[in-house]
Amino acid sequence: MRPPPGRSAPAADRPPAETPRVASRLVAVLRVGVVGGGQLARMMIPPAIELGIVIRVLAEDEGMAAQIAATQVGDYRDLDTVLAFAETVDVVTFDHEHVPQTVLRELVARGVAVHPGPDALQYAQDKIRMREGLTALGVPVPDWAAVTDAAGLQAFLDDHGGAAVVKTARGGYDGKGVRVVRSASDVEDWFAALDEDGRGGALLVEELVSFRRELAQLVARRPSGETTLWPVVETVQQDGVCAEVFAPAPGAAERLAEMAARIGLQIAEGLGVTGVLAVELFETDDDRILVNELAMRPHNSGHWSIDGSTTSQFEQHLRAVLDLPLGATGVREPWAVMINVLGGPETATLDERLPLALADQPEAKVHLYGKSPRPGRKIGHVTVTGDDLDDVTYRARAAAAFFRD
Amino acid sequence: MRPPPGRSAPAADRPPAETPRVASRLVAVLRVGVVGGGQLARMMIPPAIELGIVIRVLAEDEGMAAQIAATQVGDYRDLDTVLAFAETVDVVTFDHEHVPQTVLRELVARGVAVHPGPDALQYAQDKIRMREGLTALGVPVPDWAAVTDAAGLQAFLDDHGGAAVVKTARGGYDGKGVRVVRSASDVEDWFAALDEDGRGGALLVEELVSFRRELAQLVARRPSGETTLWPVVETVQQDGVCAEVFAPAPGAAERLAEMAARIGLQIAEGLGVTGVLAVELFETDDDRILVNELAMRPHNSGHWSIDGSTTSQFEQHLRAVLDLPLGATGVREPWAVMINVLGGPETATLDERLPLALADQPEAKVHLYGKSPRPGRKIGHVTVTGDDLDDVTYRARAAAAFFRD
Repeated sequence: MRPPPGRSAPAADRPPAETPRVASRLVAVLRVGVVGGGQLARMMIPPAIELGIVIRVLAEDEGMAAQIAATQVGDYRDLDTVLAFAETVDVVTFDHEHVPQTVLRELVARGVAVHPGPDALQYAQDKIRMREGLTALGVPVPDWAAVTDAAGLQAFLDDHGGAAVVKTARGGYDGKGVRVVRSASDVEDWFAALDEDGRGGALLVEELVSFRRELAQLVARRPSGETTLWPVVETVQQDGVCAEVFAPAPGAAERLAEMAARIGLQIAEGLGVTGVLAVELFETDDDRILVNELAMRPHNSGHWSIDGSTTSQFEQHLRAVLDLPLGATGVREPWAVMINVLGGPETATLDERLPLALADQPEAKVHLYGKSPRPGRKIGHVTVTGDDLDDVTYRARAAAAFFRD
Repeated sequence: MRPPPGRSAPAADRPPAETPRVASRLVAVLRVGVVGGGQLARMMIPPAIELGIVIRVLAEDEGMAAQIAATQVGDYRDLDTVLAFAETVDVVTFDHEHVPQTVLRELVARGVAVHPGPDALQYAQDKIRMREGLTALGVPVPDWAAVTDAAGLQAFLDDHGGAAVVKTARGGYDGKGVRVVRSASDVEDWFAALDEDGRGGALLVEELVSFRRELAQLVARRPSGETTLWPVVETVQQDGVCAEVFAPAPGAAERLAEMAARIGLQIAEGLGVTGVLAVELFETDDDRILVNELAMRPHNSGHWSIDGSTTSQFEQHLRAVLDLPLGATGVREPWAVMINVLGGPETATLDERLPLALADQPEAKVHLYGKSPRPGRKIGHVTVTGDDLDDVTYRARAAAAFFRD
């Protein structure tokens, strides 16, 4: 169609009457700095944008998952690097728990708001500290001991039916740094490493808990004290890595949910956690709840909340570390099922598989982290919400399956 | 708490065992380029991040709403600028409808995927073209004419009871470029401007429709043809600017909703729209539906969908322009109410008001666009969803009120 005679041609070269432009004067805004550029930092970016919060990321490397907000690339173990980054924001928080205590404490000493702070983070950084802290709070944990040599470990094994779980105090994640042992010689190499280290370290040994399933309780807490809880969820691990999450935990009795909530609050308050705290729990065969692990940051067991809760763990973490009032944490539908995408397809690229998944499951919320697939690596997740647990589970698994070979 | 004797001090200076790093090899990813850096571009960023889509913005200026994704600042009327930007992405789409046809057509000629394309966009860029296109499709519109002088306008007024609405063909938005007239002399200045323009342009004159309320029907359409619809919504304008949106339109009879849907689909398909199309409608006092305006992009009447629909208009727009399968568009709760934040508080900054709004309404989803407040300017919006329309409306208005004086 051509314009009829007597009508102007589209005045393409004229500027629009009033192009909206932002005035150059500064607006007071809240600025969050995230140390670490992984997918947890990445997933904080959408709620920051929605809430009008400026988010900056100190990434370990170029091209990481959170790169769109990465204003700096640098070493989080270097005090000057982290200090310079902290000066550009109102509060520093984390994608991971690896920032050294020395750096954290220097930040605090210089008046930087750090959430969670070093006093809390130490319990997430060192599993022996964690067990000590929880034991001091009276929170139910598996039997445990800190052992420095084979004799100590053997004594624990002898007291616990000849089997136990040994964990390195630091550096473990996703099942790494964890072994089931039946003899002290099973962790000979770890004891040797402790000796070489020359710092007189110890390994954590725990009773081998006979559990029915694993649960996770997420809590958020503001520095000024307000807390919120999401419903306790069931997590399914495969090879030590979170594979599936069911929210709320199916068939959880009210007593169980209340116990998990009480434990979550007790830890958040007792250890002075700020931001999101994830408490991994065992539901034992004899109906007890024991604390397995802690994470003081958004956690894989809470990814369902992006699509399944009024306030996601990522939005809540931002609100909490900024000491903003926390949001409602009710579920948006009776069930949410989250399936991790691990490894990725080997015979196709993600962008070849994405259309297949979207076409097959139009209700599924597909989340990809911008990471290159590698065996066992978490590169995304899928969440489906709805009224019928079986249906929701089927659809979430079906969508996720397109990203595997 | 200090570590007990015999335990290593936290080994803060050691790198974590396996810091996850993204391999430097390139991953195949989908890349969307958005021309224009306003809040519509801003609100495309969160779903792009969630879906693993790379989003780049060609912004008009520094510090605009979409700045976190602004890889370039430049003039969208300059062909070379837009071409260079287009080379960095897989598809070009828009935050506004102001990119000149000459630029759009040159992009297409050089093989750039442009959605919506120039053939469709012309109907959103020029209101007289729009009326011609809709009339040719047989879509119900108010009586209209293109008038080039006072005599032509007077003839239209005489035929329509002495009152009409006159609109400039281009450059109007949010009530600008629209006047209710009772005499040809009411738009004398506009006719004078047409004469000075020397291009033989015309003004659009339309019957003054007596309407019960305004509605909006949003549609998304992929280049390969798939379409989805959100439920028709009611929009409330104040001073020509969208103030409130109720989704779905309260009390909308099935017949009405079907009519709106049919009109939306007919326009999307008939004009070859790709991406999101917003059709603004009048529900007349005599139970007709007439098309008022079109927008070929995400639209204020669809902001509720971020929190209220399984797939938001922003996610759907990205999926549509990339020709990805479209997502489900059902409502997540029976009602969603969206209230615009216009102007902003004059006696406080936004970050002073944000905590008050969040504390008062923990269920409210507050969206701020990172723009400095200015009278009448859209700087954010609030959405609340729920079962009870009155309650949802009250809560959304209450939260939004904190951002006004």
